[in-house]
Amino acid sequence: MEIRHLISIEDVSAEWFTSLYSICRDMIDHPGDFSGICNGKLMASLFFEPSTRTNFSFQSAMMRLGGNVFGFSDPSATSRAKGESLADTIRMCAAYADTIVIRSPLEGAAKAASLYSAIPIINAGDGGHMHPTQTLTDLTTICQRRGEIRGFNIGLCGDLKNGRTVHSLAIALSKFPDIRFTLISPRDLAMPEYLLTYLKDHGQNYVEVTNLEAAMPHLDVLYMTRVQRERFADPLEYERLKNVYILTAKKLERAKKELLVMHPLPRCEEIAMDVDADPRAVYFDQARYGMFIRMALLLKMTHMARETPPPTASHKGSQRCKNPACVTGQELYLPILEKTNGENISCAYCDGKLLTI
Amino acid sequence: MEIRHLISIEDVSAEWFTSLYSICRDMIDHPGDFSGICNGKLMASLFFEPSTRTNFSFQSAMMRLGGNVFGFSDPSATSRAKGESLADTIRMCAAYADTIVIRSPLEGAAKAASLYSAIPIINAGDGGHMHPTQTLTDLTTICQRRGEIRGFNIGLCGDLKNGRTVHSLAIALSKFPDIRFTLISPRDLAMPEYLLTYLKDHGQNYVEVTNLEAAMPHLDVLYMTRVQRERFADPLEYERLKNVYILTAKKLERAKKELLVMHPLPRCEEIAMDVDADPRAVYFDQARYGMFIRMALLLKMTHMARETPPPTASHKGSQRCKNPACVTGQELYLPILEKTNGENISCAYCDGKLLTI
Amino acid sequence: MEIRHLISIEDVSAEWFTSLYSICRDMIDHPGDFSGICNGKLMASLFFEPSTRTNFSFQSAMMRLGGNVFGFSDPSATSRAKGESLADTIRMCAAYADTIVIRSPLEGAAKAASLYSAIPIINAGDGGHMHPTQTLTDLTTICQRRGEIRGFNIGLCGDLKNGRTVHSLAIALSKFPDIRFTLISPRDLAMPEYLLTYLKDHGQNYVEVTNLEAAMPHLDVLYMTRVQRERFADPLEYERLKNVYILTAKKLERAKKELLVMHPLPRCEEIAMDVDADPRAVYFDQARYGMFIRMALLLKMTHMARETPPPTASHKGSQRCKNPACVTGQELYLPILEKTNGENISCAYCDGKLLTI
Repeated sequence: MEIRHLISIEDVSAEWFTSLYSICRDMIDHPGDFSGICNGKLMASLFFEPSTRTNFSFQSAMMRLGGNVFGFSDPSATSRAKGESLADTIRMCAAYADTIVIRSPLEGAAKAASLYSAIPIINAGDGGHMHPTQTLTDLTTICQRRGEIRGFNIGLCGDLKNGRTVHSLAIALSKFPDIRFTLISPRDLAMPEYLLTYLKDHGQNYVEVTNLEAAMPHLDVLYMTRVQRERFADPLEYERLKNVYILTAKKLERAKKELLVMHPLPRCEEIAMDVDADPRAVYFDQARYGMFIRMALLLKMTHMARETPPPTASHKGSQRCKNPACVTGQELYLPILEKTNGENISCAYCDGKLLTI
Repeated sequence: MEIRHLISIEDVSAEWFTSLYSICRDMIDHPGDFSGICNGKLMASLFFEPSTRTNFSFQSAMMRLGGNVFGFSDPSATSRAKGESLADTIRMCAAYADTIVIRSPLEGAAKAASLYSAIPIINAGDGGHMHPTQTLTDLTTICQRRGEIRGFNIGLCGDLKNGRTVHSLAIALSKFPDIRFTLISPRDLAMPEYLLTYLKDHGQNYVEVTNLEAAMPHLDVLYMTRVQRERFADPLEYERLKNVYILTAKKLERAKKELLVMHPLPRCEEIAMDVDADPRAVYFDQARYGMFIRMALLLKMTHMARETPPPTASHKGSQRCKNPACVTGQELYLPILEKTNGENISCAYCDGKLLTI
Repeated sequence: MEIRHLISIEDVSAEWFTSLYSICRDMIDHPGDFSGICNGKLMASLFFEPSTRTNFSFQSAMMRLGGNVFGFSDPSATSRAKGESLADTIRMCAAYADTIVIRSPLEGAAKAASLYSAIPIINAGDGGHMHPTQTLTDLTTICQRRGEIRGFNIGLCGDLKNGRTVHSLAIALSKFPDIRFTLISPRDLAMPEYLLTYLKDHGQNYVEVTNLEAAMPHLDVLYMTRVQRERFADPLEYERLKNVYILTAKKLERAKKELLVMHPLPRCEEIAMDVDADPRAVYFDQARYGMFIRMALLLKMTHMARETPPPTASHKGSQRCKNPACVTGQELYLPILEKTNGENISCAYCDGKLLTI
């Protein structure tokens, strides 16, 4: 199945990823073959909140293909671009570019953008909702270092309750065969129930543990994330626990020789600097693979034909999304769109609950 | 006549535009033929005030030709660049680039820049004075959609008193044959006397009306601009009038089938969203044509030979421009230059009145 | 000797410069031959403090070679990039780019960056410490205008006590044969003792004078820098002296016909505008030569193989640099590195004194 806009990791099948990765691998092996393949092509980079790392990764990916980039990268740009609707900003940029990369604090912003765009939209993070190219980066790192994604014991460690990155990665890995998840977190920051159900429904096994060191010997991948002080109701609890979830060279002693230590970066204290020299620490290589998989994605996205989107009725209904961070709360003309998942009806922008008013 | 610097729409003849447009049309039809034509060429983009849309249009134009862009885009850059004169900033950028695009809140800034530049200057807006590439965009849209500019009834609607865009467009269209203008505005915001005289002197017809709906059936082009609350002495008058000048799908019912609805963007409430789906609404296409005509312009401008400007005497005279927004009030070394138009003598930077002191 | 990172002007030999300059001259004479030579190559431009001029020079240099640039250019970016160490920021950018240009208010920042980078680092100014590409620019200007660097009487004028630019230039010129320095400054702002010793040790002659006009007839090069009010303990002394160090057309009357008047720019009042039209005023050409020598440098730097740096022990010692502006005071994990110069031991980052604590 072809994907016109990359909005959610749920749109991505194992097959689609595998075909994207095969382009990516080619780019890693023969970078010179691709340095002019996007000559004359443009990416609009609309960062309604700053994210230096993601921004640099997309920019460098586009530029390495011979294409170029315009856009804005800081929050003050928001007010600047204001006075006009998101819909009009998107239509303007679609007049100038071949693909639009959008980052926004509003959940569902990328989906909203896709309704008004004649060119492909790529979601570079919409609030706490989705960040699909981070997940593509993670999958690429595993493929590139281990040859495939199959039969691995994947340790997800840290704040599994709030972490957008680990949620998306768990969903994506569920589409590959025979994955076992080791979910390592404080009890208060455990993986949400709906995601555990998702794993079960997709036939994957998981165990929930609280001790990183005990889990270590069994892992093929250890995906570290940060445990933030402000997530704890009780500060003493934070002080008691934080060291358990800090990775050190010492804790790696009992790990497998082929373990991959991954991290979305920037890392703070959750990985000690003495881990950096360990060949199993692949988080900086991971950043580099992220550039290459984005190159493959941008190659696809900038070579699709322009397509004027069908007219969209403005919002006139009596329904509303309850999520205060949803884009529909800011861009009031947006039509309310539903998404049915079994018996649940949710907002097709942010996956929040819908409310009839 | 060749134009070395594009400072004012008054410099542009119908012949020059027509030759520029023919390159532009070629670029629209065969974009691939031009994707490397500015390889190794650079545009300096000096925005002393933010203007996301104009900035993006110029950047994407230059990049689509295979050239590249450096510069600054926000007002804090002004203070940053400060400590040195505009003249020196221009000379520095002329050392690095092949053409300079300048946007400034100071009227006459582009003209001032041209005195010190070894490379072509393009005016991307100098305060309320001129914005010639917007006018080129407007002319291109009419040509591209109607094949030529001749014999049309052009409706200019909104604030015709203060609108830089409609003033420039009226002047430019006056150079084409058999144009009829329908000037649609509140009485308080009517087209200035000197422009009406200009139209008459150039043999063009016009009517002044206050009702958009009544004028609609006769128009070939409807150019919408905003009516801003702060322009009215009496707020009640604004409330009474504003809806008259809002374009809706309903008001379009009696319009010609080939009408072009144009707008410089960003639009606020002056065009209702229900107009967007109408095939006569060409304002988003207009943005795209703006990129293509800027591509044609940049191709010309980046291929002129470098030419050290003749030495400029610093200001030592007893004359001064009375316009407080004129660049000569800030950059005190600028020589005072006069422009004679019939019996009027005006400032050659900003067209303001000169004062002997 | 090949240079992997360009950190300090002291790393630069006359031979290395001469070979770099010969590429530069080729680029000046045949710019078209080089417009695609860096296709697909990327420069990361990390400006932790604003410097429009240096930034534009590097950007335009890279772009003219067909390469491209990403990065940040203003101080707010510092806080943005914060939350992570300089080491990690560098490792991230090294994942995306082929060379890194770094500007920082911290002395030794470029040296620190080089410890963690798989790609070449170029120092674009680290506080008051070094700015080696400015010096390359200055040498290039002399070569390009006078054919070689040999046997000239070089006047350095202005604040010779605090001026990083003149210090570096003096060091660099000391490596060329038969240079005579004329050091023109107020007594309070004379060249530091250690630099005078350096000149003597390298067999160069110098005289110290206080009067620019008297020195004028003997000079082959006059390098102007600013005398800042805030450098004077006594404001009356400043008022008395400042005009002595302002260059005017009048003062140039007795100068040699082939004199080169140089300035690092931006100039303030230290060069009167009436000098600009004199053919001996080469400061704007100097800016242009700066772009070309940076092109030559970037061509070299972007074509070196990636090389993972050896692991660096974190700082655990009991030694510290006494310089409050040294990067080691901010990035606390940095190993303390010593540099021995005769009997002096100094900090290998900032050349400051080391303190055992």
